[in-house]
Amino acid sequence: MTQTIISSASKEVIIGFDQPFVVIGERINPTGRKLLAREMKAGDYSRVQADAMAQVEAGARILDVNAGIPLADEPAILAESIRLIQSITDTPLCIDSSIVEALEAGLEAYEGKPLLNSVTGEDERLERVLPLVKKYGCAVVAISNDDSGISEDVNVRFDVARKIVERAMDYGIPAGDVIVDPLVMPIGAINTAGRQVMELVKRLREELKVNTTCGASNLSFGLPNRNGLNSAFISMAIASGMTSAITNPLHSELMQAVRGANVIMGHDPQCSAWIHSYREPGSGEGPQRGRRGGRRRHVASA
Amino acid sequence: MTQTIISSASKEVIIGFDQPFVVIGERINPTGRKLLAREMKAGDYSRVQADAMAQVEAGARILDVNAGIPLADEPAILAESIRLIQSITDTPLCIDSSIVEALEAGLEAYEGKPLLNSVTGEDERLERVLPLVKKYGCAVVAISNDDSGISEDVNVRFDVARKIVERAMDYGIPAGDVIVDPLVMPIGAINTAGRQVMELVKRLREELKVNTTCGASNLSFGLPNRNGLNSAFISMAIASGMTSAITNPLHSELMQAVRGANVIMGHDPQCSAWIHSYREPGSGEGPQRGRRGGRRRHVASA
Repeated sequence: MTQTIISSASKEVIIGFDQPFVVIGERINPTGRKLLAREMKAGDYSRVQADAMAQVEAGARILDVNAGIPLADEPAILAESIRLIQSITDTPLCIDSSIVEALEAGLEAYEGKPLLNSVTGEDERLERVLPLVKKYGCAVVAISNDDSGISEDVNVRFDVARKIVERAMDYGIPAGDVIVDPLVMPIGAINTAGRQVMELVKRLREELKVNTTCGASNLSFGLPNRNGLNSAFISMAIASGMTSAITNPLHSELMQAVRGANVIMGHDPQCSAWIHSYREPGSGEGPQRGRRGGRRRHVASA
Repeated sequence: MTQTIISSASKEVIIGFDQPFVVIGERINPTGRKLLAREMKAGDYSRVQADAMAQVEAGARILDVNAGIPLADEPAILAESIRLIQSITDTPLCIDSSIVEALEAGLEAYEGKPLLNSVTGEDERLERVLPLVKKYGCAVVAISNDDSGISEDVNVRFDVARKIVERAMDYGIPAGDVIVDPLVMPIGAINTAGRQVMELVKRLREELKVNTTCGASNLSFGLPNRNGLNSAFISMAIASGMTSAITNPLHSELMQAVRGANVIMGHDPQCSAWIHSYREPGSGEGPQRGRRGGRRRHVASA
């Protein structure tokens, strides 16, 4: 049973085949958030800290931190964001940048074993990021695209993932510290996008024995009722074996789908997390003992 | 690709591996509905008809009809319910009774090829119901319990299903006309209930090549926020290959999970059913062309 341990100075989170699904909060990211970008650039991290606490409160078990602001000193801002977030929460972090120097500055500032986001199958990226993963002993998100771009062929995406895992092992990084993102395409454009992810997650789990993650919300791009579609998708991805996602925990419908999927997968013993989240006030602690099926099972009400 | 065709005089519904998931509306059932029971017994079918129309409107593609009222003439009431429902809708029906004489009266009254609910693996039941299935050329729900009751061992439940399918074939009934209910246990009592169903559905599909159905709502018995849990479950059951369920289409959250799962499975071409259900007024017809992934895929808003 593959397990990837991510930690802060005082707290471990396990991403694993036999573990509850891990939501990695995506909110601390100035991309598309002009106000946040302006504040971070000006050295005001109050919203970063508020977003961190709100996401932890909502159920995120790891927080993604991205400081990608045009014309700003991204390494310094990312490092400072990480220091400030670690000063107010023990939730482990995912250090997210497309700039290798920013990844390194984040790793330098971080206390514990973070998740690094990300490496791709591009040779130049592999050669620059994997030594950092090895040096700092962290785990890494591996995105299954390479120098030729993102393939619509799942076999090609699988092969890219395998290449990254093998290359990581060449650097002495255990496969268990590579979490593969099979890439979620918008299903409004590619009708097979959902099945692709489900098939890839199964193969990544069975053949490469690695944990998986994804940016879940890309699936619903351009469609109405995105939260509704993302919620169905995340339950189904979990049913297929996906073990984490980088997504927005502030969407209660999505978190309900994750909590429900944890129950269905048998990863919420005694349904206690479910009951804790949804019990009505004053209704007591435990579940009623259920009926064990039987012929009159389709009982309607009223 | 297994397909089970259920029909009324003028309309066919296909339950199949490559088809959108079929919701069988469970509401027309006096069990636990005292008012409905009293009305049906007194010959007042207005609520039966209203429930039929409301469920069709909400997205049910087949309607289950049950007339199980203590000390009433169930065969006559079931037959009359079927006649009246068929007079107002062309939606095919599922004839539901634990009394064989009522099943036969329903079959006699029905126009088209109905689904019969149900046969079990009990020998006496097999010997009485299967000849009716053959005589009337209908399809049948096969519930995987037998004379020894409901096993918590999935292998035993699978073997009961296989026994029913083989027995049906002995009577000249094609396996494609047997829809197996693997039995959904309350997960508050049996933590593995969800995984059991997912595993059974896969095996029933791959080894017996049969369609599947279930009474989805039994899963959440005794737990809070039942609709939320049922919604996650139904998406995951569809991901595992389940092709229909007997459930309540009036729960919009559940229907959203079904419609979302149809999209993810690639069974909603161009996402047109999804868009039809959820587009905002005046927002136009089609989906926007989505992005094809890429590195900056975790785009946050505001």
